Amino acid sequence: MNEAALTLEGWYALHDFRLIDWTKWNKADDEERAHALDELQSLWSDWIQAEEEKRGSTAIYSIVGQKADLVQFHLRETLEELNAMEQAFYKTSFAQYTIPTYSYVSIVELSNYMAKPGANGDPMDNPEMAARLKPTLPKSKHICFYPMNKKRDLSDNWYMLSMDDRRAMMRSHGMIGRSYAGKVKQIITGSVGLDDWEWGVTLFSDDALQFKKLVYEMRFDEVSARFGEFGSFYVGNLLTPEMLNDMMKV
Amino acid sequence: MNEAALTLEGWYALHDFRLIDWTKWNKADDEERAHALDELQSLWSDWIQAEEEKRGSTAIYSIVGQKADLVQFHLRETLEELNAMEQAFYKTSFAQYTIPTYSYVSIVELSNYMAKPGANGDPMDNPEMAARLKPTLPKSKHICFYPMNKKRDLSDNWYMLSMDDRRAMMRSHGMIGRSYAGKVKQIITGSVGLDDWEWGVTLFSDDALQFKKLVYEMRFDEVSARFGEFGSFYVGNLLTPEMLNDMMKV
Amino acid sequence: MNEAALTLEGWYALHDFRLIDWTKWNKADDEERAHALDELQSLWSDWIQAEEEKRGSTAIYSIVGQKADLVQFHLRETLEELNAMEQAFYKTSFAQYTIPTYSYVSIVELSNYMAKPGANGDPMDNPEMAARLKPTLPKSKHICFYPMNKKRDLSDNWYMLSMDDRRAMMRSHGMIGRSYAGKVKQIITGSVGLDDWEWGVTLFSDDALQFKKLVYEMRFDEVSARFGEFGSFYVGNLLTPEMLNDMMKV
Amino acid sequence: MNEAALTLEGWYALHDFRLIDWTKWNKADDEERAHALDELQSLWSDWIQAEEEKRGSTAIYSIVGQKADLVQFHLRETLEELNAMEQAFYKTSFAQYTIPTYSYVSIVELSNYMAKPGANGDPMDNPEMAARLKPTLPKSKHICFYPMNKKRDLSDNWYMLSMDDRRAMMRSHGMIGRSYAGKVKQIITGSVGLDDWEWGVTLFSDDALQFKKLVYEMRFDEVSARFGEFGSFYVGNLLTPEMLNDMMKV
Amino acid sequence: MNEAALTLEGWYALHDFRLIDWTKWNKADDEERAHALDELQSLWSDWIQAEEEKRGSTAIYSIVGQKADLVQFHLRETLEELNAMEQAFYKTSFAQYTIPTYSYVSIVELSNYMAKPGANGDPMDNPEMAARLKPTLPKSKHICFYPMNKKRDLSDNWYMLSMDDRRAMMRSHGMIGRSYAGKVKQIITGSVGLDDWEWGVTLFSDDALQFKKLVYEMRFDEVSARFGEFGSFYVGNLLTPEMLNDMMKV
Repeated sequence: MNEAALTLEGWYALHDFRLIDWTKWNKADDEERAHALDELQSLWSDWIQAEEEKRGSTAIYSIVGQKADLVQFHLRETLEELNAMEQAFYKTSFAQYTIPTYSYVSIVELSNYMAKPGANGDPMDNPEMAARLKPTLPKSKHICFYPMNKKRDLSDNWYMLSMDDRRAMMRSHGMIGRSYAGKVKQIITGSVGLDDWEWGVTLFSDDALQFKKLVYEMRFDEVSARFGEFGSFYVGNLLTPEMLNDMMKV
Repeated sequence: MNEAALTLEGWYALHDFRLIDWTKWNKADDEERAHALDELQSLWSDWIQAEEEKRGSTAIYSIVGQKADLVQFHLRETLEELNAMEQAFYKTSFAQYTIPTYSYVSIVELSNYMAKPGANGDPMDNPEMAARLKPTLPKSKHICFYPMNKKRDLSDNWYMLSMDDRRAMMRSHGMIGRSYAGKVKQIITGSVGLDDWEWGVTLFSDDALQFKKLVYEMRFDEVSARFGEFGSFYVGNLLTPEMLNDMMKV
Repeated sequence: MNEAALTLEGWYALHDFRLIDWTKWNKADDEERAHALDELQSLWSDWIQAEEEKRGSTAIYSIVGQKADLVQFHLRETLEELNAMEQAFYKTSFAQYTIPTYSYVSIVELSNYMAKPGANGDPMDNPEMAARLKPTLPKSKHICFYPMNKKRDLSDNWYMLSMDDRRAMMRSHGMIGRSYAGKVKQIITGSVGLDDWEWGVTLFSDDALQFKKLVYEMRFDEVSARFGEFGSFYVGNLLTPEMLNDMMKV
Repeated sequence: MNEAALTLEGWYALHDFRLIDWTKWNKADDEERAHALDELQSLWSDWIQAEEEKRGSTAIYSIVGQKADLVQFHLRETLEELNAMEQAFYKTSFAQYTIPTYSYVSIVELSNYMAKPGANGDPMDNPEMAARLKPTLPKSKHICFYPMNKKRDLSDNWYMLSMDDRRAMMRSHGMIGRSYAGKVKQIITGSVGLDDWEWGVTLFSDDALQFKKLVYEMRFDEVSARFGEFGSFYVGNLLTPEMLNDMMKV
Repeated sequence: MNEAALTLEGWYALHDFRLIDWTKWNKADDEERAHALDELQSLWSDWIQAEEEKRGSTAIYSIVGQKADLVQFHLRETLEELNAMEQAFYKTSFAQYTIPTYSYVSIVELSNYMAKPGANGDPMDNPEMAARLKPTLPKSKHICFYPMNKKRDLSDNWYMLSMDDRRAMMRSHGMIGRSYAGKVKQIITGSVGLDDWEWGVTLFSDDALQFKKLVYEMRFDEVSARFGEFGSFYVGNLLTPEMLNDMMKV
């Protein structure tokens, strides 16, 4: 029995990072800008409704720095729905004022290292499990996203360790995460076979400093210290429909 | 006798990934869009006909995320035909609404690790072999593509192993693949001397989650764990001519 | 007790590097250029006022070479303020004559290796600490910025060392820094969980040669020699509002 | 005595890869296209004449996939001539329909590992040598180009081996190459001090599959397995002036 | 006593590589082109005058291949002067026909490995030293530029070697360089703390083949073989003001 067999998966996830083309936005007239915002807000209403109907979940944040101005983080039951959402966005006039910079395709995942191996039946019958596999994304003040791999480099090869060694390290790793309970909410999405890294980590907190504290503390943990490979980090601030309208006001 | 001598090759392959230039597409008028789609659909009819006449095969999928919006996966007898297909595409008006993002040149390959070494004669005389070397691409709901290398890094050097060690590892690797029979269909294309990675792996399935399960399970196998180097992963949804027309409707 | 718990953090930091689009600037007429400069200078006045009111700090330098023409280095209490500053800049007409090239999100940090572990109470009650955590940026003639990591590479893995080994190495490292006191002023900002490297180093000096002397001398120190990984280096010259106007005069 | 002293060099080489800007080409009118092709064909006539007069050699191929549409491979006596050829090309109207994607500067080289060390006198007095150092490029149906290095990575460091070890490995390597005589023609160009990799390898064959067979077989050879580092591979089809006109017909 | 303390520095250096935007240049009319060239030649006269007055030095070369069409290599007393030169160039109309591709910021450096440690006093009082620290750049037929690092990779870590080991290796390295005296002139510029690599090497020769011979011979030397990391290589041909006018003639 290996990890692949034990891992549980929930909703598919799409992180879509993009810049605002401010020069184009500033040049548009008031009517064009109002129309563009209307079209975006109309889509956003659909996303909110889908969330209320438990058909998925969406969180929108602004991003600090030049890597992106906005991230859309969408959860849906199928890849087809995520694809349709991308296409619907591209057909809005708002989209033409944006420049794609990075995206991530993955699926919400609960690792077997945490799961009770004796559990039987459909995990979706367990309300706690269902809530974790098909979560409503928090609307905390801040978001942090980064993709990561487990290293396979000569003597530091995670995938050549025994299951017992991996489990012991992951437990100690999980203890650090737990010590941030109430301060940081973490969504792990798996992306092996779906995108370029093996996992995406999305953190939510009302205090952005907790992202630094958590990730730094974990870096001294053997799982991260020896085996963690990290991609780009994105950090940002919550947007509500109203806040986005304010942000785009010229 | 080495692997090069034992490997069997079939049709040449071209994976062509591209984005839609949605801003340009949205700005075009209905007539221009209809004309562009007509020209693409006309080429696509040719591709379907070629497939029916066993002169090659083609699969078209949309891609999720910002890496691409579309992939054309073409198989043909010669590099000249693939080159001509690219040029014919570029002469359509549809092409001007697309932006190339990635391509892969390779050739369908059956590895000797699976082949019976005692086999004689032209493999194309064996109908099962012929079907694998010159396959009709599945039209499953989902596609997954990634290129890969076998590592040559100090003590983890695949090419310095003995043939026996390589064969034993590849057999165990193949067993995992086989356990997904009926769920995932795999096309291996070799690209040593043709493109930047050594192999391209194209997976087809009606359940995208099986891509993750398969690739993750294999990652714990020594061949992948110690020796696999992976490029970008692309995942997407089947397009038929009708579905593409729908997708492009503004 | 680990470093994360001991590290002290102050203001959030944003380094924003951008090129001037000289072709566009040269083509603009005098009125457009004057208007663009006015809008920038107006923002700059706000930044100066914020600095006077101890609500943050800002330093603007020109950069030598093609990586950038300008860097804005801003310190503020929250990520939201930094985000708002970016957006305000993008709404000026000056911004449309610039091209973003690199940015860095971090937070002013005092490492425990230097701090007295016995210290109690809120560090902001200690005026010397407060001045280091929420500093007014020097207006030296030259700036140098580079991001860095501590290596995690097989036997050269900083994060697998004992706290004692790390502390001993960091002390020797700190001694070199101290020998440049009066010549080079150093601001360390931490970016674990916030951006792609673990730290940003910003140096200020009236003699740019001291950057080379300091960084080169440190490179022979075990902390840097074995464990330092460095990103791009940016070096530049102080800009005052008047100097920027001169620089932009066509 | 080291390899540098023993290596023989002939003509300088420039590989120039570029895409066709098909959108621009399709938008041009018939007259503009005819004029552009005329200017290119006129240059090409000069290149053919130079080849006939043994002042250099030129081969033009189309490239399969998105990396390039065309490669010009030019050999000349001096870097100044190659530079002048680039500039002459850029002054044609055809050039404005192309987008440069990659180039390689090198010099035809005969390695001492193959040369007879006892040979004296000017190698250009030896007609066989002269033909190899200043070759007329084959006009085979297919081309394959890739740049490469010899690795310098800890225990896999080619440049720290003894001359005897290097010679023994290169001989075995050369034997594989010889077994493809008549099927693949190989031009080695050295680029140490001239471009980013140490060598460029250009292969010519009437059967593109032989590129894969040759490169794959060599990969199991210790020289490649332990010491070879490879850049991008480009593969393509022969173009004659007539074939190019056909390819560009809209 | 460490190397940083012993190294001598002279003028600051800026290598500025750029492409010609030939499409734009070809479209300009004769008057615009004449005006653009006049403005560039006027700057160039200033640079020549500065060289005559020993306030700096400048060399201009064309570059072979697609990495660049031109390099400006400027030496000046301060970073402010180099920055002003960049800005003056950008204000010419010639600049709008160019596209920046790479630049390098460094400072002329004489390593202590070569210097006599017993020397006292200001090195600028020694005319031979002064000529090497503030050199007039050669106007040889060819230029070669590349940046480099000394490796810090596990057991191949230059900065963890003893001063004696480093000195012994650098002497042997220097002997190779000396054997090219009269054929190749070498300017070493240090860039630790100033740009992304540790050193820039600029070679001048009337015979471009000597670049290859020198760099290849050195590669077998332990300093390069084990410890050298190299960036991109640029090679080109001398330009005089007249030659540039010819090159730009359409």
